[in-house]
Amino acid sequence: MTTKRVYFFGNGEAEGRASMKNLLGGKGANLAEMTSLGVPVPPGFTITTETCTEFQKLGDLPEGLMAEVTSNLKRVEEIRGKQFGDLTNPLLFSVRSGARVSMPGMMDTVLNIGLNDQTVEALATASGDARFAWDSYRRLLQMYSDVVMGLDRQLTEKLIEERKEERGVALDTELSVDDWRDLTAQFKAVILDVLGKPFPQDPQEQLVGAIKAVFESWNIPRAKIYRRNNNISDDWGTAVNVQSMVFGNLGNNCATGVAFTRDPSDGTNIFFGEFLVNAQGEDVVAGIRTPQAINRSKDENPDLPTLEEIMPEAYGELLAIREKLENHYKDMQDLEFTIENGVLWMLQTRNGKRTIFSAIRIATDLVAQGMIDTRTAVARIPANELPKLFAPVLNGDAKIQAETDGLSLTRGLAASPGGAAGRLVLDPDKAQEWVANGDKVVLTRIETSPEDIGGMSVAEGILTARGGMTSHAAVVARGMGVPCVSGAGDLRIDYTARTVKVGAHLLHEGDLIAIDGFDGRVYKGEVEVMPSEILQVLSGKLKAEDSELYQRYEQIMTWSDEIKSLGVRTNADTPHDATVARQFGATGIGLCRTEHMFFGGDRILHVREMILADDEQGRRAALAQLLDFQREDFIGILGAMHDLPVTIRLLDPPLHEFLPHEAENQAEVAAEMGVSPEVIKQKVDALHEFNPMLGHRGCRLGISMPEITEMQARAIFEAAVQLTRDGVKVFPEVMVPLIGTAAELTHQKTVINTIAEQVFAEQGLRVDYLVGTMIEVPRAALTAAAVATEAQFFSFGTNDLTQMTFGYSRDDAGKFLKIYTEKDSTQWPKYLTAPILPNDPFEVLDREGVGQLVAMATQNGRKAREEAGLSRLKVGICGEHGGEPSSVEFCHLTGLDYVSCSPYRVPVARLAAAQAVLNN
Amino acid sequence: MTTKRVYFFGNGEAEGRASMKNLLGGKGANLAEMTSLGVPVPPGFTITTETCTEFQKLGDLPEGLMAEVTSNLKRVEEIRGKQFGDLTNPLLFSVRSGARVSMPGMMDTVLNIGLNDQTVEALATASGDARFAWDSYRRLLQMYSDVVMGLDRQLTEKLIEERKEERGVALDTELSVDDWRDLTAQFKAVILDVLGKPFPQDPQEQLVGAIKAVFESWNIPRAKIYRRNNNISDDWGTAVNVQSMVFGNLGNNCATGVAFTRDPSDGTNIFFGEFLVNAQGEDVVAGIRTPQAINRSKDENPDLPTLEEIMPEAYGELLAIREKLENHYKDMQDLEFTIENGVLWMLQTRNGKRTIFSAIRIATDLVAQGMIDTRTAVARIPANELPKLFAPVLNGDAKIQAETDGLSLTRGLAASPGGAAGRLVLDPDKAQEWVANGDKVVLTRIETSPEDIGGMSVAEGILTARGGMTSHAAVVARGMGVPCVSGAGDLRIDYTARTVKVGAHLLHEGDLIAIDGFDGRVYKGEVEVMPSEILQVLSGKLKAEDSELYQRYEQIMTWSDEIKSLGVRTNADTPHDATVARQFGATGIGLCRTEHMFFGGDRILHVREMILADDEQGRRAALAQLLDFQREDFIGILGAMHDLPVTIRLLDPPLHEFLPHEAENQAEVAAEMGVSPEVIKQKVDALHEFNPMLGHRGCRLGISMPEITEMQARAIFEAAVQLTRDGVKVFPEVMVPLIGTAAELTHQKTVINTIAEQVFAEQGLRVDYLVGTMIEVPRAALTAAAVATEAQFFSFGTNDLTQMTFGYSRDDAGKFLKIYTEKDSTQWPKYLTAPILPNDPFEVLDREGVGQLVAMATQNGRKAREEAGLSRLKVGICGEHGGEPSSVEFCHLTGLDYVSCSPYRVPVARLAAAQAVLNN
Repeated sequence: MTTKRVYFFGNGEAEGRASMKNLLGGKGANLAEMTSLGVPVPPGFTITTETCTEFQKLGDLPEGLMAEVTSNLKRVEEIRGKQFGDLTNPLLFSVRSGARVSMPGMMDTVLNIGLNDQTVEALATASGDARFAWDSYRRLLQMYSDVVMGLDRQLTEKLIEERKEERGVALDTELSVDDWRDLTAQFKAVILDVLGKPFPQDPQEQLVGAIKAVFESWNIPRAKIYRRNNNISDDWGTAVNVQSMVFGNLGNNCATGVAFTRDPSDGTNIFFGEFLVNAQGEDVVAGIRTPQAINRSKDENPDLPTLEEIMPEAYGELLAIREKLENHYKDMQDLEFTIENGVLWMLQTRNGKRTIFSAIRIATDLVAQGMIDTRTAVARIPANELPKLFAPVLNGDAKIQAETDGLSLTRGLAASPGGAAGRLVLDPDKAQEWVANGDKVVLTRIETSPEDIGGMSVAEGILTARGGMTSHAAVVARGMGVPCVSGAGDLRIDYTARTVKVGAHLLHEGDLIAIDGFDGRVYKGEVEVMPSEILQVLSGKLKAEDSELYQRYEQIMTWSDEIKSLGVRTNADTPHDATVARQFGATGIGLCRTEHMFFGGDRILHVREMILADDEQGRRAALAQLLDFQREDFIGILGAMHDLPVTIRLLDPPLHEFLPHEAENQAEVAAEMGVSPEVIKQKVDALHEFNPMLGHRGCRLGISMPEITEMQARAIFEAAVQLTRDGVKVFPEVMVPLIGTAAELTHQKTVINTIAEQVFAEQGLRVDYLVGTMIEVPRAALTAAAVATEAQFFSFGTNDLTQMTFGYSRDDAGKFLKIYTEKDSTQWPKYLTAPILPNDPFEVLDREGVGQLVAMATQNGRKAREEAGLSRLKVGICGEHGGEPSSVEFCHLTGLDYVSCSPYRVPVARLAAAQAVLNN
Repeated sequence: MTTKRVYFFGNGEAEGRASMKNLLGGKGANLAEMTSLGVPVPPGFTITTETCTEFQKLGDLPEGLMAEVTSNLKRVEEIRGKQFGDLTNPLLFSVRSGARVSMPGMMDTVLNIGLNDQTVEALATASGDARFAWDSYRRLLQMYSDVVMGLDRQLTEKLIEERKEERGVALDTELSVDDWRDLTAQFKAVILDVLGKPFPQDPQEQLVGAIKAVFESWNIPRAKIYRRNNNISDDWGTAVNVQSMVFGNLGNNCATGVAFTRDPSDGTNIFFGEFLVNAQGEDVVAGIRTPQAINRSKDENPDLPTLEEIMPEAYGELLAIREKLENHYKDMQDLEFTIENGVLWMLQTRNGKRTIFSAIRIATDLVAQGMIDTRTAVARIPANELPKLFAPVLNGDAKIQAETDGLSLTRGLAASPGGAAGRLVLDPDKAQEWVANGDKVVLTRIETSPEDIGGMSVAEGILTARGGMTSHAAVVARGMGVPCVSGAGDLRIDYTARTVKVGAHLLHEGDLIAIDGFDGRVYKGEVEVMPSEILQVLSGKLKAEDSELYQRYEQIMTWSDEIKSLGVRTNADTPHDATVARQFGATGIGLCRTEHMFFGGDRILHVREMILADDEQGRRAALAQLLDFQREDFIGILGAMHDLPVTIRLLDPPLHEFLPHEAENQAEVAAEMGVSPEVIKQKVDALHEFNPMLGHRGCRLGISMPEITEMQARAIFEAAVQLTRDGVKVFPEVMVPLIGTAAELTHQKTVINTIAEQVFAEQGLRVDYLVGTMIEVPRAALTAAAVATEAQFFSFGTNDLTQMTFGYSRDDAGKFLKIYTEKDSTQWPKYLTAPILPNDPFEVLDREGVGQLVAMATQNGRKAREEAGLSRLKVGICGEHGGEPSSVEFCHLTGLDYVSCSPYRVPVARLAAAQAVLNN
């Protein structure tokens, strides 16, 4: 039996279905599904991903494939009533890639397959539009020569530019049929000239070439890198979708557009879309012509007619399809459609990308509508984007004031949510430069292009004069979470004069402006940026019942907590941070760094006295002074976290961090302390380390100077006893840092337990507490079984563990880590063919190396305590990875008890912890 | 059936034997064995180690034990014809510990058990020596109150000192019977006063107390630490030897002594020993009286009569016993004997400690005598001490000249071999101070004590006025490998005047002196110190046939090579080092650091040009200049190591190491390079790293600047091709440093292979080579399976691997590592009850942590290549651990292919590798 390699779809019947994504790719499976649903899809067929794998092995198309292609092609011809290569009414095809998961822009597409010197004339006759026919032919020539034959696209683009200059016109649309006819001849000449072979006139040869090109595009570098960075297997392969062409550019009863079944920006349940009359799909995305809205659901571009108004029948069909598809897929859909001579064709449907605001609204709405359950809702929220909910907004009163003062400049599209204020800057390099100097900027461009990414990523906000909701600026800004207003057509941007004119206003580069990505408004001058709505609720400035956003957010969080098994704690050193984190849902402190308490006020003075002391006695005298401060600190933080556990890490940094390193500051401190500057300098020199990261710090301090540990333990237990006596429930967990051997922990535990007993005896009151350790030295992880018998809990300090496991100093690694994680291949050094690392390991926990140590230590540590009949080892993570979704998932999979992260990442961790359950 | 807890020995019969060490301890098993051999051993019995374990569990002696003790005691009484506690002729006992392996000085001993206020009088009468009896009683009181009752020994010693002052005498021996009688009364009073309980007068109670004290001494801190540091299990327990006392201090027909069946200093097959007439054993070891030689085998102390001369019968017996024991144990024995009223008793025999010189001589002699096989010979050489064979000696001609010039001062005992010259220094603290300032010193003391260790360890040599071959100075110096002359009785050392008088010579502290630890001679002024005999042979200055030492050394090395399975390579960066290492037996270079080639001459200039270059082009220009130098370097080193593999490590250190950091030097370099000092300073600042150890170095350089790797690869392959063309066989192995991910190696391998192909094509000649990597980053070890598929070999860089696994910066860790590895408990910070680490992990490979990574990487790496059908992974180690015996054993056990170490450690590694086979 031969393998079936080609799956047909068309006319309400399809051999494939949505669940066959692995075989047919996402696009092919969805085209089949839509066809079966009765949605009008141009007929065509999908060549399977398995055929791609065959192709990669053979280096050629497998035998029998083209026979299958030809028979499917005939079915399409029958449905469309036209023939491929026909000299009177030729049928044209598109050939597109389509992998199991979307790899946007990564692989290639060829349209208008089937046109040649003869069929172009036939198309001209049949369509009655010679300009359209020659325009289509030149598009084929450009794409085919680029994608299939490997000609530099610049060569053909240049010819078009020259022709436009010659004609004195600015836009492609202003070129005539004769221009295009001439250009096709020029294109063919340049192909022959540069490549030494002609453009193939045979439609069949074109089709074979295009199919092969799509298969080959699976292995172009950018596709490989994309896969590597997105954990897509090289073995999956891409499908090829061969679909009969429909045209939105055959005249004014034609159109092409994109639509979202709900608003992708804020998630409102409205039908939202944009289209262009007499245009092809790429024209919409390119953002050169400002598109028209499909309806009046939002009052954008009110002077342009809507699809509903000019093609009510097609709009009606589209509206019905919207409902059909959303009900079918049970999620907001991103649709592509073309209207050819008044007939609506659907080219694509897929789950639409959305902002975090819209994701939350859509998910909660769909649950309310009974379309999805709460688990599905939680699964659909992009955890990493949650912090955008807490992003600043423009102050409403300040906006009204600006309006009143005549400083409201214009209104564009609300392309990416959030308020931003800063200096107007007109080019991306300058944006980066100014930001590096500490300025905040709003990058303002006529339109943006991929080269602008650098500047876009550092800007507070992005403002463009051209382009719709799906323009480059809008898409990228939403992806980055940068507020954006796009298509503000009133802006007259002059890159040469470095000015922007808006009506009567003239702005110079460097002037202050503000944009509101929620409503598209643009202001001149200073407009206050203020905390997000949710933060206002959390801080009590706004009532929960007055904030729909807060309620929906809280709903998602509640559902997440019902699903997740991981605990979520926070890293907090002050009562304030602890309070914020509790509001965000933290159920304990996983890391309270005590060294932050050593700075500030008189404390630092005593810390320095301790460091300068020549002997234990001198250190003890200084530490006695510090005791009162530390006890107060612990009363504050244990009190703020009443009823919840608080992991307190003993002193960690090397002592020289508490002394000034510059001569000037040394003199100041010397004066303050009544010693000569030379004394300070000598101590700093004596404490100098070549690699402080690997030096005299952590428990190494507490072992060589046990009086430091004594003081800290005393402060903790005295605070705990006092609070307990006052009726506050406290759960202190004393954490020893930088353990590398069990013996270190044994020593520090002895000090802690001895002092605890002393304090309890003195005070006549006992308090439960735990003693555990941070696992941040590889050796501690490797010898976890021994360490665990001394530790009631482990907390992985994955920042340091990453530093030591990779041998990367976080302070220094920037230089090569940038190269190691660079995704842009043009920036790579010679010989590099893929990034060395998929991610910065300080951002996303490295599962292979660091994660191996975490898993090993968790398992061996738990086992050792179990075998020794000791209490179960509590295990958490307190590195910054604790608030990063992929790392949280890893912690869940590894069986940790909790993650701990900075207060603002607590909601991310809660959601990610729930998704980890759902995904596994 | 009850367990037998007590094993009898005496009168030619013994229940135990030498093979029962686990049950009876080393001492007990040997006493039994000697007894069975017919050697005269004072009868007694051994309580088993198992009883110790019972005692630890019960906290008391097990039931039935004392009944067994009593019945054995009766057997002893029968043999000796005396009764324990008898009021006319009392039998006394010693009670000593004796574990499975020797733990010298670790546990406790009580002598003269059975004396009390009555029996002391009986002993006085029976022995006819009242002074002896009261001296014995006071010794019992001192030991018993200290060891069993816990009285501070200082309290009783102080009373003796006071009495001596009162009497105006210096030595204990000068005190009279009345003095001792008074002192016993004082001792009893102080015991009662301080401890609140009296010294037990009941002999039975004394015996029980002493047995318990020995069992308890198993768990005193210093014993625990000793076990921990020597890998002795806490479960083994100690045996207790209860033995009837014999006395060497009953008059002038009594003596006590120690003897070695061969010379422990140089191994000559002579009977060598020392004794004191009318003395107890501890008097010999204390070194207060200069002992007499047992015979004239060496011409020491010719003015004192020998044992052979004054007690020829006892000496004759001893000589026969020497032969009997050496033939039986087939090794040089260390004997303790006592002659009581002309009757010889053997108290102990054990394998004697020896210098490396004597170890080599004894082992090769015993093989020649057919007493042991070559494997046993190899097993007996202390590998760690081999480098002492290469230690300097005094120039023979210079010695003769000094003699002629009247600068030969005196002659003491040749207590520890080696020649030393330096400044005379009279106290150990000053010795440390002067050495810290760059001086060489000869520490000169009347006698040494444990507090002097610090100064002894840094001295070139040690000279004492008092004490024999077994005095503190002699034992410690031999242990440390420091040359020592002891017991040079002519020296008149004045600590106050800081002078030393020797006959007519007056030396002041700071004057130059020299000592010869081979013959005991002491010289004034400068005497040349020159290379050891073996080095003279290796360097061709002396013929092999003229050096017996060399021949014996070579014999041991040859036997070692026959046994070992590990390869031994060397770490060498220059043709000279490579040549030396070949002479020492290295069979390849395991680490050739190329950065050392970047310094010196014009090279550093081009290196700096490269660093200062702003772009790749500039770097390439500078690298082109370096290429010629590097090619020559590789021709040199590959040539020197012809026929053997050479592992060349690519550039490793961060670039700032090649630039000057001081302003002054920056100005110089700037002038040299024709740039402003500011340029240099800016570059240094730009390259500054907080933790250079974890910074931009190793392959991170070669990846961000592939042109560096290109240049180095080109130099290697051009050199290899040129040598090959010249008929030299070369085996270059290119090693990429600091790999943390497989992708890094992939990149560097691509560069190396690309350049190799280029060079081979250009030159029309191919050379075989390997590409592999250093495993020194924990992550590389953790992900070894992936890394191995890209690597033909692994070489563990255990220096860096130790740094990163422990999180210790080698440059900075001194401060806390000193505390972590401190063995002297008086130096410990509070709460510490054992050293944190048994060894400095940079000296002895940490098997538990670092070793785990090495083993994991070796196994996973080999398996991955096997599964992938690739060549077998070659695995070696090139950290400094490669020349340390315990680490070499680990490498053998882990299945590595080779170790690589510095040239002078190559013989150590060869021997250790053989011993690893023999021990496992």
